[in-house]
Amino acid sequence: MSSENSSLFERVSDVKTFGGRQIRVRHQSAVLNCEMHFSVFLPPAATDDTKVPSVYFLSGLTCSDENFSTKAGAQRVAAELGLALVIPDTSPRGDAVADDESYDLGQGAGFYLNATQAPWSEHYRMYDYITEELPTLVDAHFPVTERKAISGHSMGGHGAISIACKLPKQYSSVSAFSPIVNPMVCPWGEKAFTHYLGAERSTWAEYDSVELLRSRGLDLPLLVDQGSADGFLEEQLLTDNLVAVSKHLDHVQIRMQTGYDHSYYFIATFIEAHLRFHAQHLSA
Amino acid sequence: MSSENSSLFERVSDVKTFGGRQIRVRHQSAVLNCEMHFSVFLPPAATDDTKVPSVYFLSGLTCSDENFSTKAGAQRVAAELGLALVIPDTSPRGDAVADDESYDLGQGAGFYLNATQAPWSEHYRMYDYITEELPTLVDAHFPVTERKAISGHSMGGHGAISIACKLPKQYSSVSAFSPIVNPMVCPWGEKAFTHYLGAERSTWAEYDSVELLRSRGLDLPLLVDQGSADGFLEEQLLTDNLVAVSKHLDHVQIRMQTGYDHSYYFIATFIEAHLRFHAQHLSA
Repeated sequence: MSSENSSLFERVSDVKTFGGRQIRVRHQSAVLNCEMHFSVFLPPAATDDTKVPSVYFLSGLTCSDENFSTKAGAQRVAAELGLALVIPDTSPRGDAVADDESYDLGQGAGFYLNATQAPWSEHYRMYDYITEELPTLVDAHFPVTERKAISGHSMGGHGAISIACKLPKQYSSVSAFSPIVNPMVCPWGEKAFTHYLGAERSTWAEYDSVELLRSRGLDLPLLVDQGSADGFLEEQLLTDNLVAVSKHLDHVQIRMQTGYDHSYYFIATFIEAHLRFHAQHLSA
Repeated sequence: MSSENSSLFERVSDVKTFGGRQIRVRHQSAVLNCEMHFSVFLPPAATDDTKVPSVYFLSGLTCSDENFSTKAGAQRVAAELGLALVIPDTSPRGDAVADDESYDLGQGAGFYLNATQAPWSEHYRMYDYITEELPTLVDAHFPVTERKAISGHSMGGHGAISIACKLPKQYSSVSAFSPIVNPMVCPWGEKAFTHYLGAERSTWAEYDSVELLRSRGLDLPLLVDQGSADGFLEEQLLTDNLVAVSKHLDHVQIRMQTGYDHSYYFIATFIEAHLRFHAQHLSA
């Protein structure tokens, strides 16, 4: 890695939408040790003189930063509410980065954790990237305040809730669409955690939302929407386990949305409610 | 083509969004002589007992029915206004259908005309498909009234305006995002019309919006949005020619939107205004 590469930070696109700017950045990640892309939406209220709060959105398996950017319809409401959107990729990327042929392991499937096992540990440190390197970069290059919320879909819902449990002071609210709430005991999570963290299950709990909520509780408001027609609900998402562990927690809302599936058509339907929820707590 | 194929009409997906249904259909087109897909959004107001008006949306070069379905954010407003959306593909499709390596000719680039030249004339009859076969199918299978509006983007904006000029009684209003308004004199149009219609330019005018507006006027309201930062504006879209020919026409609104480009980020920003425009005239 040349020193030129290590300082790479380039806007690869900058497009006007809803009066704001949809910006895509290519940069060299020191934490992930590879080149990455992420996207930022700046609402019209964000100017050189005026900083705005931000909502981080973590995407699901197989996604990049572009799925949420192009399909969720989030910019309309973010523009109205004066919120920046920060949209990272879902794993380290590139020919030099370990990968797997299956869609649920390797590139596109970073699970927002710091891998401890070879070959994954060399690049797969998405927890540190999302919680440290990326916000430092965003704060340095864009007009955002320190106020942050975090949200995500599926694997990204797992990421949002587990991160918020561990860093409740870094975010004012957390939300999720169809999150993988209990990865330790579902096939997607068991496979990923075995590869990334090793066979010793005691190390898995720090990345499992249900286990974290059980051991630590939650010091910020949580909103979850889950579609009742989601084909992954019974085997992978295990929403009932979240309902059970949240029974005695304040400020947790888990809503079963009748007839909705796992797709972006579901996210698009409810993203407005999530952004209004975050705006309320970001301005509190 | 077996008789089984000729009657093929299959819902390949049916997903809830904004309280309505986003449906994708696979069917055998008699007009195009190939298998096709199209998408329909039905708002919550559309039921077995209640029919709703519809807006046809014609997409641009390289697109299928899925670009507008997933990226425009149109379903939210269509659900609120009680409008069905009918979203066709942009050309005939399949291994047996003539094609070209370039993105602006052949599959994905049907230009909403009836080709007269070999090898295109065997399948490329998008004008008849959009104006006759598709509405007949949609009317037969979905709860829609006879009231229709038509809109489109880029090549689809060309399609929407040129079709509305020729069939003003079939649509109550027409709109376009960044339309190719004068294809006879821009590179995209000259290339496509030469291949599909032959070298004799006199046959081109019936598919050229500027020429049709000059010769026939327009008997229904037209709304056009064009981004000022659209990279295709000067060479391909030629919006000035539309402004010039519309000078003496009533009910034509052409709006230059400062700083917007040619992408779906532009469409998403203004689709609400277009659907409200169509709803107003559909209910008049």
